[in-house]
Order: sequence, then structure tokens, then C-alpha cells
Amino acid sequence: MDYTFELKMKVRDYECDLQGIVNNANYQHYIEHTRHEYLTSRGISFAQMHADGIDAVVARITMSYKTPLTSGDEFVSKLYLKREGIKYVFYQDIFRLPDMKCVMKAVVDTVCLINGRLGTCDELDQKLTFQE
Amino acid sequence: MDYTFELKMKVRDYECDLQGIVNNANYQHYIEHTRHEYLTSRGISFAQMHADGIDAVVARITMSYKTPLTSGDEFVSKLYLKREGIKYVFYQDIFRLPDMKCVMKAVVDTVCLINGRLGTCDELDQKLTFQE
Amino acid sequence: MDYTFELKMKVRDYECDLQGIVNNANYQHYIEHTRHEYLTSRGISFAQMHADGIDAVVARITMSYKTPLTSGDEFVSKLYLKREGIKYVFYQDIFRLPDMKCVMKAVVDTVCLINGRLGTCDELDQKLTFQE
Amino acid sequence: MDYTFELKMKVRDYECDLQGIVNNANYQHYIEHTRHEYLTSRGISFAQMHADGIDAVVARITMSYKTPLTSGDEFVSKLYLKREGIKYVFYQDIFRLPDMKCVMKAVVDTVCLINGRLGTCDELDQKLTFQE
Repeated sequence: MDYTFELKMKVRDYECDLQGIVNNANYQHYIEHTRHEYLTSRGISFAQMHADGIDAVVARITMSYKTPLTSGDEFVSKLYLKREGIKYVFYQDIFRLPDMKCVMKAVVDTVCLINGRLGTCDELDQKLTFQE
Repeated sequence: MDYTFELKMKVRDYECDLQGIVNNANYQHYIEHTRHEYLTSRGISFAQMHADGIDAVVARITMSYKTPLTSGDEFVSKLYLKREGIKYVFYQDIFRLPDMKCVMKAVVDTVCLINGRLGTCDELDQKLTFQE
Repeated sequence: MDYTFELKMKVRDYECDLQGIVNNANYQHYIEHTRHEYLTSRGISFAQMHADGIDAVVARITMSYKTPLTSGDEFVSKLYLKREGIKYVFYQDIFRLPDMKCVMKAVVDTVCLINGRLGTCDELDQKLTFQE
Repeated sequence: MDYTFELKMKVRDYECDLQGIVNNANYQHYIEHTRHEYLTSRGISFAQMHADGIDAVVARITMSYKTPLTSGDEFVSKLYLKREGIKYVFYQDIFRLPDMKCVMKAVVDTVCLINGRLGTCDELDQKLTFQE
């Protein structure tokens, strides 16, 4: 894999549920935050896009859970991106630190709504890096 | 106590943390939802208020935790309201069902920001019920 | 579709994000809660299973987002279940009320860990209803 | 103020609600995480304590909200601690970066439950730093 961006994070105890491991929905938070930080690193603000009437929304997400994270774990969240027609498809993997065991693999199809209608976003097309 | 509004709810497992009990922050969610449902019952939409430039915000909150809720518990969240100067002060208590054991007692000071400035909100003053 | 279980719910404002719609991760909360309530309706406690050393965990989840929910929306979360080898596969759909517009469709592969090892759970096999 | 511990964090967009600012309950998450990281820095694991039958629980919390955090904001969460009878009282303040504007001030009364009963915890008494 040739990742475009990565973000190091640490489990917060409130993210663990009664099984003592990170609740499944929180991985979705982790990878959303990673996408937004990637945008930020390219000079794009998700909140400003929304204020400008451009909403990047998730159309479909697939997550495969491999190894659960638990209290105290550190991890790195990595992504690369492909442009497939009108979709921006993020490939996002999480690895536990320091052993780099795979925690989760996700594919996230996103699309842009311009004032509520499906459209293309020049700013994203120009500032993001797409893999072939 | 003479409560003005009450809402019955049930613990969702994802709200429990690694101690097996509802995480403290979720009680704040419970009572926020109760306040908003109270507004709804009086014909007021919190989201519409925001869209109209009126934001009710919490200035101060005190919560006393008495008995933890856990997986499977049902509870009732009750409130009454006082007007203290510019503040709307919500007194909010949660009781476990069916034994009505007290779970949490909160006092929530809220104020209105009209286009970002402290102000009064006629709609709230007219539609809500205040105790002396 | 021939659903086995359904649960009516309502959006809570804190579940909406800065786009003003329910944050994607919260749908995972909604459908997790629906699964657990389904178990409860069959006399199975997710928390008790965990205490007994049996953890039902999500191995893979796919969610297709169709129509966003927003503040004030009510919805119904429905599911049916198939047994596919060692996997319990939940098919979970959410519909907005009252117009029954499709909000989200999910397929959730779950497996049982018995004291940490992949296994089968007689209690689930006996008490749950599987479609062919 | 003479703070004992501080942790730098950044707002994650999913923590913002439909008002476009961090939802009140998330500040409680921020300061819980800060307390747990403080424990970690002193060689104490909150999760291990729970596994050993010792649960530090919040008995009472007061939070004063001064300035809301919003998308993209970085902040520092600081704390110091006093021992008041059987209570461990955390004084926790959050400041926005880089202007150090005060975001929130909290006082958090915690107590220890040893196998479910109020008690004292030697490990905490020995490893933590208390202000007079």
C-alpha cells in the first residue's frame, strides 16, 4: 500500500464499551477524523465547505474489523484516495502501535452535494492526491 | 418536587463504558435530549431556533451522581424550570425504573445568544412554564 | 423483505453534527442498539453474555446511506437474520417515519468469541429466528 | 494556578453539534480523558484498577462554560488535584490555543469504590500529587 496520509491517535477510555474494547462505531469516528485532518493538511476545511454549501457525505462504507483496540492502545490511521467517476473513494486502514497489527480496513465512498445536489468539487479535485 | 415534563428512556449498551455502567458524559446527553423534547412538546424546535439565529447554550451545569445506570436499565428523566434574571435554570433529575431510585440530580443554567449576543427570547418566555 | 424485529426511535439533537444531520457513526449505534434489543426480546442479555465469557463481535459491516436523518426525525430500525456458516449475518434497514423513505441499509457480519476463541453459541442458535 | 498535568488536544469535527460548536457533553469526555492520561503518566491504569475491583467514580461535577470550541480548534486541558476527606477533587480547566482564552472550568469530585464500597485507594494516595 502507498498511503497518502496518516494520523497517530490513542484510545480514550470512554470509547471502550462494556466488552472492554473500543465500540465499533468509534472506528468510524477515527477514520472520519483522519479524512478531515487529511483535508486540513491540504488547506481544506470541512466546516468551511459546509458553510459554503458544499457537503462531502458518505454514500457507503465497508469496515472489516480484524483486531480490537483496547484501553491504552495507540494506533495509526492511514488513508489513500481514488477518484471513481463522481465518487471519492477513501481506503482507510488502522494499525495498532507499536506492533503494526491490522485493526481495521475500510473503504469509504463519498460524494459531494453542492447545495443539496450531487456534483463535483473543483477544490477537492485540485488539492487532493488521487491514486490510479 | 413538581416536575413540568418527563421522558422515559432506556440505556443503550453503547452508552456503557469499560466499568460496565453508563459513562458519565452520557447523562449530559440524556438531560440535553430531555430539555429539547420539552421544547418540542411546547412547539419549539431547538434546530429551528439555531437556524433563526437564536442559540440556547449551557453556561453552567452541576450534576450529582447517586446511582449508576447499567445495561438494560430503564429510567425516567424529569425537569422543571425557573427564570432567574437572564438565565433559564433547568432542574433535572433522573430516576431508575421501576424502583424510582435517584440516579442523578442536575442544575443546568442556560442563556440565550441572539446572533451571538446575550439576550432574551420571547418565544421561550411565552411558551415555557416557569416555577416560582 | 420479511423482517423479524423492529424498533422505533427518534433522532436526538446531540447525534447531529455540524452539517445539521445525524453523524454517520450514529447509525452504527442505532443498529447496534436494535440488535441488542432484539436479543433482549428473545431473553438474551448482551451484557450477561459478556459476563459469561461469550462476546458477539462485529467482523464486518457495510452501510449504504440513502437519506440523512435530521433533528426531530422519527424512524424505525428493522432487521432479519441469516446463519451463514459460523457467522450470524444481520440485515438491517432504517426507514424514516412517517413516509417510510429508506435512510440506510446495512449488512452486519457477527461472530461469537467464546473466551476469546471463535465458536458457536447454542443460546443464540436456539433463541434467534433465522431466515433461509 | 499551579497545574500538575496538561494535555494538548484538538477538536474532532464529529464532536461538534448542529450549532457548529463542540457539544457540551464532549467537554466531559475531554476532561475524563485528561484525568486518565494523568493517571497513566503516574503509572496507574484506570482499566487495570477496574479489573482489580477498584473503581474511581465521579460523585459530582460542576462545569462552567466560558467560550465554545469549534471545528479546527486546538486546546490544552489542565488539572490539579486536592484530597478532601475521602474525595479526590480534580480542578480542571480548558484553554483554547494559541490565545489561551478560557473555554471551561470544572470541579470534579471523585471517590473510590473498592468492590462496590466507598473506600480509600493506597495506590492513588502514593502516586498522585495533591495540592494543599
